[in-house]
Amino acid sequence: MTKVVIQVNQDGVDYFKRVTNNIINLKKNLGVKLIECEIVVFGAGLGLLQSEDDTIRKRIKEILAFDMRFVVCNNTLTNKNVDVNNLQCSVNQAGSGVAHLVTRQEEGWAYLAL
Amino acid sequence: MTKVVIQVNQDGVDYFKRVTNNIINLKKNLGVKLIECEIVVFGAGLGLLQSEDDTIRKRIKEILAFDMRFVVCNNTLTNKNVDVNNLQCSVNQAGSGVAHLVTRQEEGWAYLAL
Amino acid sequence: MTKVVIQVNQDGVDYFKRVTNNIINLKKNLGVKLIECEIVVFGAGLGLLQSEDDTIRKRIKEILAFDMRFVVCNNTLTNKNVDVNNLQCSVNQAGSGVAHLVTRQEEGWAYLAL
Repeated sequence: MTKVVIQVNQDGVDYFKRVTNNIINLKKNLGVKLIECEIVVFGAGLGLLQSEDDTIRKRIKEILAFDMRFVVCNNTLTNKNVDVNNLQCSVNQAGSGVAHLVTRQEEGWAYLAL
Repeated sequence: MTKVVIQVNQDGVDYFKRVTNNIINLKKNLGVKLIECEIVVFGAGLGLLQSEDDTIRKRIKEILAFDMRFVVCNNTLTNKNVDVNNLQCSVNQAGSGVAHLVTRQEEGWAYLAL
Repeated sequence: MTKVVIQVNQDGVDYFKRVTNNIINLKKNLGVKLIECEIVVFGAGLGLLQSEDDTIRKRIKEILAFDMRFVVCNNTLTNKNVDVNNLQCSVNQAGSGVAHLVTRQEEGWAYLAL
């Protein structure tokens, strides 16, 4: 039973397309074996959840439909003065994105920095 | 006894030189303690195995001589319409590069995203 | 009890500011639970410890005050012909930065490639 935590901390449409594509392929390949997957968004990566790009918005919906979760760093929301309700989708929150990545690894989750 | 899975998913001669140098230094430092090492190539990273650059080609040969393996993502080969027989060296294949990175971590391998 | 090894292998003031900020936030979030943290500097990442930027120098001091350690790759020092005594702070040394990242993961430390 596989659990994965994925880091999204960079900016740019090409990066967001690449990472969302990787995430969807991960789920398609592992199927039901992938029981938990969190995409941890922090720093410049917040742009993923603010993007107006059609491909990215469609892939975010697809990722949510696969029961994967977005987890947003509260430090980032505060620093960028962004209201969590103004993101493209509902998300979970963590005090610190990097601390969340570390905690999940301690719990035995695999880690991807794509 | 160390097992390592290394991600190669970006493009560019400088990146390929840097990563191959890191891989060779890893082996030189760990020696026989490094019993398994797979370099997982996907997305733009496929260019590593198509490069005509002399330094890169020489380092690929050196890596293979160290009994490290290249593992190529089948999704990437399909999307880029590349025949695995046209790469610079013989490789192993995985259905999904990212899924392979996750599976190896579950099996206790260390992970590097260089 | 959390142990974390963090990779610093790229160049640029923006990158160094981002990574040092991430490291400080990690400590602030985990607090005493974070009992060991090593920042492994190699390749172009060496510039972090040579930077004259005030923000970066201040953050390096803050990181050291938190009892986190910088570990510098000896291969990098040799290749760049840099004397370890000319860096911005005292550091630990490892034969190979990438090998050190792998060894720490084997010992159960979490890994971050930010």
